[in-house]
Amino acid sequence: MNMVELIIKKREGKELSQQEIEKFIQQYIKDEIEDYQVSALLMAICFQGLNQRETADLTMAMVNSGDQMNLEMIPGVKVDKHSTGGVADTTTLILAPLVASCGVPVMKMSGRGLGFTGGTLDKLEAIPGFNPYQSMEKAIQNVQDIGIAIIGQTHNMVPADKKLYALRDVTGTVDQLSLIASSIMSKKIASGADGIVLDVKVGSGAFMNTEEQAFALAKEMVQIGKNVGRKTVAIITDMNQPLGMAVGNALEVKEAIQVLRGEVEGPLKEVSLLLGSHMLHIGGYVSSLEEGKQKLEENIQNGKGALKLADLIRLQGGDERVITDYTLLPQSKEIIPFLAQQDGYISSMKAQEIGKSSMLLGAGRMTMEDIIDPAVGLVMKKRVGDPIRKGEVIAEFYVNKKEHIKEAMSVFERALHIQKEAPPLSPYIHGMVTGEDIK
Amino acid sequence: MNMVELIIKKREGKELSQQEIEKFIQQYIKDEIEDYQVSALLMAICFQGLNQRETADLTMAMVNSGDQMNLEMIPGVKVDKHSTGGVADTTTLILAPLVASCGVPVMKMSGRGLGFTGGTLDKLEAIPGFNPYQSMEKAIQNVQDIGIAIIGQTHNMVPADKKLYALRDVTGTVDQLSLIASSIMSKKIASGADGIVLDVKVGSGAFMNTEEQAFALAKEMVQIGKNVGRKTVAIITDMNQPLGMAVGNALEVKEAIQVLRGEVEGPLKEVSLLLGSHMLHIGGYVSSLEEGKQKLEENIQNGKGALKLADLIRLQGGDERVITDYTLLPQSKEIIPFLAQQDGYISSMKAQEIGKSSMLLGAGRMTMEDIIDPAVGLVMKKRVGDPIRKGEVIAEFYVNKKEHIKEAMSVFERALHIQKEAPPLSPYIHGMVTGEDIK
Repeated sequence: MNMVELIIKKREGKELSQQEIEKFIQQYIKDEIEDYQVSALLMAICFQGLNQRETADLTMAMVNSGDQMNLEMIPGVKVDKHSTGGVADTTTLILAPLVASCGVPVMKMSGRGLGFTGGTLDKLEAIPGFNPYQSMEKAIQNVQDIGIAIIGQTHNMVPADKKLYALRDVTGTVDQLSLIASSIMSKKIASGADGIVLDVKVGSGAFMNTEEQAFALAKEMVQIGKNVGRKTVAIITDMNQPLGMAVGNALEVKEAIQVLRGEVEGPLKEVSLLLGSHMLHIGGYVSSLEEGKQKLEENIQNGKGALKLADLIRLQGGDERVITDYTLLPQSKEIIPFLAQQDGYISSMKAQEIGKSSMLLGAGRMTMEDIIDPAVGLVMKKRVGDPIRKGEVIAEFYVNKKEHIKEAMSVFERALHIQKEAPPLSPYIHGMVTGEDIK
Repeated sequence: MNMVELIIKKREGKELSQQEIEKFIQQYIKDEIEDYQVSALLMAICFQGLNQRETADLTMAMVNSGDQMNLEMIPGVKVDKHSTGGVADTTTLILAPLVASCGVPVMKMSGRGLGFTGGTLDKLEAIPGFNPYQSMEKAIQNVQDIGIAIIGQTHNMVPADKKLYALRDVTGTVDQLSLIASSIMSKKIASGADGIVLDVKVGSGAFMNTEEQAFALAKEMVQIGKNVGRKTVAIITDMNQPLGMAVGNALEVKEAIQVLRGEVEGPLKEVSLLLGSHMLHIGGYVSSLEEGKQKLEENIQNGKGALKLADLIRLQGGDERVITDYTLLPQSKEIIPFLAQQDGYISSMKAQEIGKSSMLLGAGRMTMEDIIDPAVGLVMKKRVGDPIRKGEVIAEFYVNKKEHIKEAMSVFERALHIQKEAPPLSPYIHGMVTGEDIK
């Protein structure tokens, strides 16, 4: 393949054929194409875009670049969920056991976090003994036995995406919709999902800052799903403030268990139930979203969801007693309150800064080599719209190393805005995109 | 410097500062910036462009990336000339000695050809003994003694341009006006010229196929000259058919001498006189173009131009008797006529194909390693618009290796179009751009 001609073709706004896209990906993972040619092509794509067919072809070429999970031994429709990433977003820990408790097989591959907070794997590892590194055989056996497994991604899955993403990251070509969408979807498809529920975050704390961007990404991904034959639905949810109240690994595990046990209401539960009911619905396990939501709520009330999480923890080597005894989770040495300096209403709690504040305490990592402290983080006591009085506790900081407190608090303070009048509230569900919304 | 931020800045259509452009070039020639980042930036420039200030800054950053010629020891205003490249374009061999014979110091750096025909150095080397590799000191001494030197480019001149061009060539980012213009102008400025006359070719045989493109490139270059304080003028000349009649190294030397001796009229002479009179004019040696043209014509008639070429050849080790005895130039074994197959008028003689035909005979090189045969090539006996009769000679092929003839002739045939009616003739001067035409 003449790579210069391919670059010029895209530079001139022409369509690349399926064969061209496949060859490009195949040769690139074999190091037969130079990075400097690929980065030029990626930049041309940033300006000229990829059409639906090209995006679907790129997605499948990336899927085919490495191993794919074969979930045929597991009976039933397999439905996966993906979030574009947010702060205090612990929905996976809630909805995975919850939908599994409704009879949906859940084989979930998760990642670690880089930046503000930990990823699902980091959170699960806060549970003493929990091991996310199961062999594929063992994980499939677990799903057959108890209906659920949550494991780390295998090494050779979607290598083309890893290589392309690393290059995009250093060449200013990250934020192109088709590239973002194909990157996300290729991983979900390679994981063997029949159906995919996407949680696209929007707001100051999300990769997509505006509703327009978030809906565009959602459409792009649902379109790929449609083109490659995977039922896909996307929910656009708010990330102007953190979704839950806890930011930090063990703290988020505790909050997830509290939701599963019916002890806590609020946006984290609502979004989890919405995503979960979509999973039940596109998997064909219920005939309406209302029915799905009702089933999930039932399994919170009767304890089946929490018990399923206990099963999961036990089968992956963890101490399942954390479900009933939160003190078995890692505890920080100190809890320091952050107090309101004035009366008023909270008009913003910027998710990004709050995530950063928690990261500074040790709950996240700046580089992949950093070690996370599972015990630390912060728990918000108030949300946007809440009235506060001077001296009232806005958040509690869970701290192990005193030297981090000052900077973490000052970053938290910057995240916070207080005003005299009650602010308008933004919804925590902004909308959704299904296959029917796509032309 | 954060290169990712720089790429994104340009991707978003923002202006890069002088400091950013300088640092980028400085670090790139020191291999401190990766090729894959530079190619992404170049592609972003292809879409977002560079404004006048950025283009001038890029040009000067490239000039400053290597050695610059210091021509201060040579008194007078130094004027250089550059052609964007065409077939049978031997103007340098004519106008360099001609303007030198009018008292203008000519220190010319020339290159070799890649593709259709040889470059000025290749043509000069067709003269027995001629050596283009003079030390800078010797070349300056020659200019002081006889007013002219034509030498090969020194190794470390404009290294940033060499490196950037090599990358553009393999990343589909060659044809961006500001990049082309800054590449050409940086070399001329580093060569120490006070004034620059540009010959921008337009037509099927040129890099710029349309008048619009050619004028745009001309404006871009004249603008750079204005912004960096070098008087610059650009002439847009025709390259739909070859400029002269001879295509091949010794053959073109002969034609150049014939023009200098007043034995040949036509477009090659006209374009040479026009470019030469602009050189005299912007150098301040004459007060009008008419006066310049008259002086040049005088020095053809009184033999001073031809004698200056003889001086140049002698001082650079060549046999100056070629000026009076063309048989001292390399001669091919055979001359084979190409005959007209029908009556009619020649409506096109595509320069690119005619160049390729000559190259196939051995007059040009496909790769830098190929060795040129100075004796071979072809001489056209007719031009576009000429009436022909079946059996008449359209061109003569000067051949050393018989096995090349068939393909060369068939390529020549493809270059040729003959029709019943006399075709409209395109002008060989399409226009010009001076500093006053630039806002």
